[in-house]
Amino acid sequence: MNPKNNHVVIMAGGIGSRFWPMSSPKLPKQFIDALGCGRTLIQLTVDRFKEICPLENIWIVTLADYAEYVKEQLPDFPQEHVLLEPCRRSTAPCIAYACWKIKAKNPRANVVVTPCDHIVMDVPEFQRVVNSALSFTEKSDAIVTLGMKATRPETGYGYIEADLSMACPSNTEIYRVYAFKEKPNKATAERYLRRKNYFWNAGIFVWNVSTIVNALRVYQPALGSLFERMLPYFYTDKEQEMVNELFPLCENISVDYAIMENVDEIYVLPASFGWSDLGTWGSLYENLQKDPQGNVCVGPNIKMYESRNCVVHTTQERKVVVQGLDGYIVAEKDDTLLVCRMEEEQRIKEFSAE
Amino acid sequence: MNPKNNHVVIMAGGIGSRFWPMSSPKLPKQFIDALGCGRTLIQLTVDRFKEICPLENIWIVTLADYAEYVKEQLPDFPQEHVLLEPCRRSTAPCIAYACWKIKAKNPRANVVVTPCDHIVMDVPEFQRVVNSALSFTEKSDAIVTLGMKATRPETGYGYIEADLSMACPSNTEIYRVYAFKEKPNKATAERYLRRKNYFWNAGIFVWNVSTIVNALRVYQPALGSLFERMLPYFYTDKEQEMVNELFPLCENISVDYAIMENVDEIYVLPASFGWSDLGTWGSLYENLQKDPQGNVCVGPNIKMYESRNCVVHTTQERKVVVQGLDGYIVAEKDDTLLVCRMEEEQRIKEFSAE
Repeated sequence: MNPKNNHVVIMAGGIGSRFWPMSSPKLPKQFIDALGCGRTLIQLTVDRFKEICPLENIWIVTLADYAEYVKEQLPDFPQEHVLLEPCRRSTAPCIAYACWKIKAKNPRANVVVTPCDHIVMDVPEFQRVVNSALSFTEKSDAIVTLGMKATRPETGYGYIEADLSMACPSNTEIYRVYAFKEKPNKATAERYLRRKNYFWNAGIFVWNVSTIVNALRVYQPALGSLFERMLPYFYTDKEQEMVNELFPLCENISVDYAIMENVDEIYVLPASFGWSDLGTWGSLYENLQKDPQGNVCVGPNIKMYESRNCVVHTTQERKVVVQGLDGYIVAEKDDTLLVCRMEEEQRIKEFSAE
Repeated sequence: MNPKNNHVVIMAGGIGSRFWPMSSPKLPKQFIDALGCGRTLIQLTVDRFKEICPLENIWIVTLADYAEYVKEQLPDFPQEHVLLEPCRRSTAPCIAYACWKIKAKNPRANVVVTPCDHIVMDVPEFQRVVNSALSFTEKSDAIVTLGMKATRPETGYGYIEADLSMACPSNTEIYRVYAFKEKPNKATAERYLRRKNYFWNAGIFVWNVSTIVNALRVYQPALGSLFERMLPYFYTDKEQEMVNELFPLCENISVDYAIMENVDEIYVLPASFGWSDLGTWGSLYENLQKDPQGNVCVGPNIKMYESRNCVVHTTQERKVVVQGLDGYIVAEKDDTLLVCRMEEEQRIKEFSAE
């Protein structure tokens, strides 16, 4: 495999509304040091992919509003590889933009598309898995998804149902996908967990650039023709102007609906690398180290008294004292404070509304 | 009664440690808009006394560190009436400083001494009561304390035990004091409440300036002689210098120990004007209007969900969402956040320690 053909497209336009108040449309979670480790999620994402391909093959697609955050947090990142969406249009237009642009320079490019607000605990295993998928798509027009081995009946993720009866001859850790499943209810999630051939959909896709461009042309012809119109302007002074004009005309559609539900030849690589989509406070709680009372505290000066099973998160320099809470989220950021039972976290969107 | 002889001494040097984090030694509660009414407690205190005497007869004694707050919050207040203590020495030296100084200019002065971190709901009644006490001490060398009619078995206040068998002939709402009582335990407080002749000690004293200066000379001769040494420098350029030199030599002693426990002829005026010493979060909670769920919210944008009997206090412009709490204090200020059961509020000093 020639790593010079490997490209990574980092989708960094999400708004992270379930992580309020840490995350907000003004400063979404990918630009925050959510883990309290000194690196923001987008920095951690770029770090992970530096071993997969050279930095100049990494692309970040984000909302124009967030361009400054990218510049600030990734000062060494080639700014011409930061693609700016003038408005939100979900994942299919985002991927199309990057892939049309990559293909214009390198039709043999082999591409990983990834969100950047996820966490990965076992980075070497992650890199091994991604390289395995890339070496597969280098020689095939397949779409490979990464399927996370389920460890609990999670209702917050979509699932990938795989046919485990026969691995691919060319890569024995890759299997055909039967179907993509929406977020299940609890009973269904429990059934999925027992079945062993259901994997969490991590939203990480691997394919060569011809495969994805062709699939978009076939299944989303309107979208495809918009990017054909933009293509002559890519890498010119007029690129942003044309994107600003035509990108808003794209349908607001996710890659799952645009492609995955239409294409037959989709594969999954089941893997375990300590993944979490970090979608909610609960998932942050699950993924961070707990003190003996089961509390997760992220912040410089947090004191807990008679408290258990809480997640306390402060991104500013603050002193926090929490007494007598069990199972709560206590989160503050800038001018906003949330105190809420963890089991009510699905209502955070409601709470955060003005 | 000649209101020109009426003077008010406002003691504004307290640190309000039980009100952390709203109040801290850096910015104690008297300088905070604790009630969320747009006026700080010291502003409210000055407002209350403007009807008692002219502004130029009001004196504020505070720690030098707090001089700027007084200036900022009371821009029209005569700055030469702000007396600056170079260090904390409790209430007796504070009162001595003001009274020696007042007496130097007006030996017939009639003085109210008051804390400024208390709240008073019925201001006209408060003013009536203070005037009644002043008219009494104008013609007598008595010390009059204001006794608050107890409405609950409060363990957070000291009590005044009165002899209600006979009112003073010259003022029938004033009675002799039998004894001052320390903060009682619950059982004792309940007994006091049943007894009817026990009143909360509001820490507001009324006397003429000769009475207090004489009492200090007799019962606290060391203190008296220090102020005799300072006296020639009062109202001169050297006043602050001398105070800075000699005030630190004063014994750290409260007026209760210095005088009240020694003097026989002490009187109490039992009154009801919606007083609270606002010493704790619980007392703030008791004194403010509650929503139908029993929550007290002070702050511009506080939303409560499934929460009852809480006090939520923010002094900055903040958005706060509280869900699923019953009987908690949620207080934030600057870089500090406290979430704590209200019944644990006596531990706030412990929580606030570095």
